[in-house]
Amino acid sequence: MSTPERGRVLLSVTGFNPQRWYDLLSKERDVVLEPDGAEDPSIDYAVVWKHQKGALAKLPNLKVIFSIGAGVDHIFADDQVPDVPIVRVVAENLTQYMCEYVTWRVLDHHRQGAVYREQQVRKVWHEPRQPPANEVSVGIMGLGQLGTRAAQALRAVGFSVNGWSRTPKDIDGVKGFHGEDGLTPFLNATDILVVLLPLTPATHGIVNHSLLSRLRQDGPLGGPCLINAGRGGLQRETDILKALEEGVLKEASLDVFEREPLAPESPLWSHPRVFVTPHAAATSDPAHLVPPMLQQMAAFERGEALENLVDRSAGY
Amino acid sequence: MSTPERGRVLLSVTGFNPQRWYDLLSKERDVVLEPDGAEDPSIDYAVVWKHQKGALAKLPNLKVIFSIGAGVDHIFADDQVPDVPIVRVVAENLTQYMCEYVTWRVLDHHRQGAVYREQQVRKVWHEPRQPPANEVSVGIMGLGQLGTRAAQALRAVGFSVNGWSRTPKDIDGVKGFHGEDGLTPFLNATDILVVLLPLTPATHGIVNHSLLSRLRQDGPLGGPCLINAGRGGLQRETDILKALEEGVLKEASLDVFEREPLAPESPLWSHPRVFVTPHAAATSDPAHLVPPMLQQMAAFERGEALENLVDRSAGY
Ligand SMILES: NC(=O)c1ccc[n+]([C@@H]2O[C@H](COP(=O)([O-])OP(=O)(O)OC[C@H]3O[C@@H](n4cnc5c(N)ncnc54)[C@H](OP(=O)(O)O)[C@@H]3O)[C@@H](O)[C@H]2O)c1
Ligand SMILES: NC(=O)c1ccc[n+]([C@@H]2O[C@H](COP(=O)([O-])OP(=O)(O)OC[C@H]3O[C@@H](n4cnc5c(N)ncnc54)[C@H](OP(=O)(O)O)[C@@H]3O)[C@@H](O)[C@H]2O)c1
Repeated sequence: MSTPERGRVLLSVTGFNPQRWYDLLSKERDVVLEPDGAEDPSIDYAVVWKHQKGALAKLPNLKVIFSIGAGVDHIFADDQVPDVPIVRVVAENLTQYMCEYVTWRVLDHHRQGAVYREQQVRKVWHEPRQPPANEVSVGIMGLGQLGTRAAQALRAVGFSVNGWSRTPKDIDGVKGFHGEDGLTPFLNATDILVVLLPLTPATHGIVNHSLLSRLRQDGPLGGPCLINAGRGGLQRETDILKALEEGVLKEASLDVFEREPLAPESPLWSHPRVFVTPHAAATSDPAHLVPPMLQQMAAFERGEALENLVDRSAGY
Repeated sequence: MSTPERGRVLLSVTGFNPQRWYDLLSKERDVVLEPDGAEDPSIDYAVVWKHQKGALAKLPNLKVIFSIGAGVDHIFADDQVPDVPIVRVVAENLTQYMCEYVTWRVLDHHRQGAVYREQQVRKVWHEPRQPPANEVSVGIMGLGQLGTRAAQALRAVGFSVNGWSRTPKDIDGVKGFHGEDGLTPFLNATDILVVLLPLTPATHGIVNHSLLSRLRQDGPLGGPCLINAGRGGLQRETDILKALEEGVLKEASLDVFEREPLAPESPLWSHPRVFVTPHAAATSDPAHLVPPMLQQMAAFERGEALENLVDRSAGY
């Protein structure tokens, strides 16, 4: 593959206004906003979030795809993605946001925010039983960039932390489980489940009733809690609602949904034990993410290796 | 002062049921529940929370006072406290609880919990602007046992952390301010103020309108937030309400109040930007606190030095 001298960029975005991305990329590159770029032989790079399916395959000289986001399921939703390197987001800013979101939601479940807010409405002065964090086991599914940092912050706050990944991991102070065989023991030891997996064929719908019912039922919080900040496609929302009704699940914080935006008719919105955020756990801020993209383009043109490449066979 | 052979204990508590304290102390000691112990010459130790004023002065052979709690203002509320050593609570369990509470409340203000909860009621899918934690400055008043640990956890989550104390402190990654001269620069640099001071003559009413109006007004959160988990006597509730009305203060989390339990007629209960907890930030758990008290009694009787002594002149 020949490296371009100063490659042009196609910016292809659905679901939000790409203006700031356009402005920042344009500082160093000639940027084409889809659909203008369709079949354009002068395009070398595509910067994408939920691009129009089939569009990338029509770019005859595409060299690299850059994902706007740590996850790349939005790219593989297109089954005609050309066989060029795919670079995903790994950025301190994004990792920082996710660490905050996870720690916040874990603490709100652990410290019984819902109980106190309800008591306040009724002007009730009452202290419920409160286990200390070290007696509570947080289980993180997905010990990658985001899961590892969240695990470290939760350890610093005082929680017991377990993790589950595809391959074995060795993170200081975190008990690791991996693979299919490790899943049930991991779940059995978990009071607060944090889902930070990528969405792949192997993880699609993994947060289902069978999984939820394997969480520790006799833990110190009076029932397990779920936090999903990975992807909506990882979860089965009817199963989550059923588990909540049965008491198999105590509470949930969901940042992602099977369909986004979450439909007004979803019972999740008004469920008293569900906390909804609009896929805002870790926002992709162009001020932080465009400069490293531009740096990678320049490095690529100098013949250097790309970083944060996606493994196509694993799907993340 | 002669050390007793196996001293008797007076347990004097107001505001909660002392049964578990009684049971655990009784495992090793002969325990007298007030008011039975009044003027009893056989009493060597008093274990107290808001004891009856004047009662301790009537114990002719009292050797040591143990506070149920890290703060000792409840002891000095009695101006006839005999001049014997006062031991306060320093315990990993208590420090752990406070670390959780502070990190939880800081994150709920920082990550705009109130905005999301209100949006959820209206089924609104909207992502507000969100500064990352490293752009937010948390200022901790009181860098003692509790403040230091909270500072470290907040650093691990990613916040910028400043602290204010009476004497200079050197805590890794925490910018320290101290004394009267340091107060205004400390406040000017603070977006989220965490109050973990002891209540003493020098700190009484310190969280007043003048203090609140010196917090950073043009910070990244659209206004400063207050978290008081120290003591209610540190704050002026009318000033907090005024600052909230004026917009000088954006939100508050209050665990302690000028009068406890908080009166049903207090406007704090129903204020949309105030979060109320019932002095539950860090509960004194007898299972964790009685064993070290018993150990200190035994050590004292072996002629060893007492630990965690209160400095009477400083009042904490
Ligand atoms: N809600 C939001 O705002 C938001 C923002 C950013 C990202 N996200 C989501 O967060 C996800 C994780 O991001 P990241 O940067 O941490 O990804 P990453 O670094 O690629 O880490 C992924 C982790 O998941 C594990 N994993 C993948 N497939 C698995 C399987 N089949 N079984 C067990 N473990 C498996 C990996 O195991 P190995 O370590 O063994 O490879 C790895 O530990 C993204 O894919 C995205 O969907 C959400
Ligand atoms: N809400 C709850 O559930 C709960 C539970 C436990 C405790 N508390 C409260 O938390 C307080 C702090 O506990 P702790 O164990 O951290 O106390 P500590 O170890 O004695 O620390 C007190 C800190 O406050 C500073 N300080 C005291 N007077 C000051 C003044 N006039 N000006 C500036 N700084 C001053 C001290 O400065 P130096 O370092 O210079 O001495 C020290 O850093 C307790 O007194 C209690 O009131 C509340």
